[in-house]
Amino acid sequence: MRQRLTVITLGVADLARARAFYEALGWRSESPPELEVVFFEASGLVLSLWDSDKLAEDNGVEPGSGYGGVTLAHNVGSAAEVDAVIAEARQAGASVTREPGETFWGGYSGVFVDPDGHPWEVAHNPHWTLGADGSVSLPS
Amino acid sequence: MRQRLTVITLGVADLARARAFYEALGWRSESPPELEVVFFEASGLVLSLWDSDKLAEDNGVEPGSGYGGVTLAHNVGSAAEVDAVIAEARQAGASVTREPGETFWGGYSGVFVDPDGHPWEVAHNPHWTLGADGSVSLPS
Repeated sequence: MRQRLTVITLGVADLARARAFYEALGWRSESPPELEVVFFEASGLVLSLWDSDKLAEDNGVEPGSGYGGVTLAHNVGSAAEVDAVIAEARQAGASVTREPGETFWGGYSGVFVDPDGHPWEVAHNPHWTLGADGSVSLPS
Repeated sequence: MRQRLTVITLGVADLARARAFYEALGWRSESPPELEVVFFEASGLVLSLWDSDKLAEDNGVEPGSGYGGVTLAHNVGSAAEVDAVIAEARQAGASVTREPGETFWGGYSGVFVDPDGHPWEVAHNPHWTLGADGSVSLPS
């Protein structure tokens, strides 16, 4: 198995609401509205939204009660950018579950949850390299 | 907010067990064993493993009962490769919750769950383009 992840599917209760939330954050999808899934292409990776019950059935697993121990993250280049993205998420209707601030690992971050409870950490990590395309690489 | 995802953290109950599972799949991490987190660099994205209770507390959310409506995916170039990766995952100790087979969307896939219940779909999607580096792009 290659050391590569290609798609992340978030289970959602209401596809239109979920799509509207990510669009309010500035994301764009070419998926037609009649499709029952929404694909966002994100630099070599696809973030998709699909009905959470169908997703669980498709995966052969039991639907959970919401948060299931997965956190997505969006790294940015500075603490000020963290503040800006968290403000943008709040404006888009997200709950901010941890206000931006300094972290125990020496960076700066905040956390919002999307309308279906999926957490996103918005972080500035001064120890990691952020490429021009937004990709991250670890110190070697 | 850029249309970009940079880190996915999977909450785990036993870090050594979780690391051993991903290493059994052939993944490699340079994180020292004394660190309480494991980072796998995956082509511009980082997959990290961290204690699920600490992750929930850090995110300001309630720990769930396992599956929380997030599925990771690993796209490959053929049905035969799907079979091979699912076999490799089973060999590494994963439960296979959906055996490889043709899918309703015209592809071929199977699903395994890792030791903490996080599902991975291993898929061949003939409608998507898979780059030489393993990245995916949607048809335009």
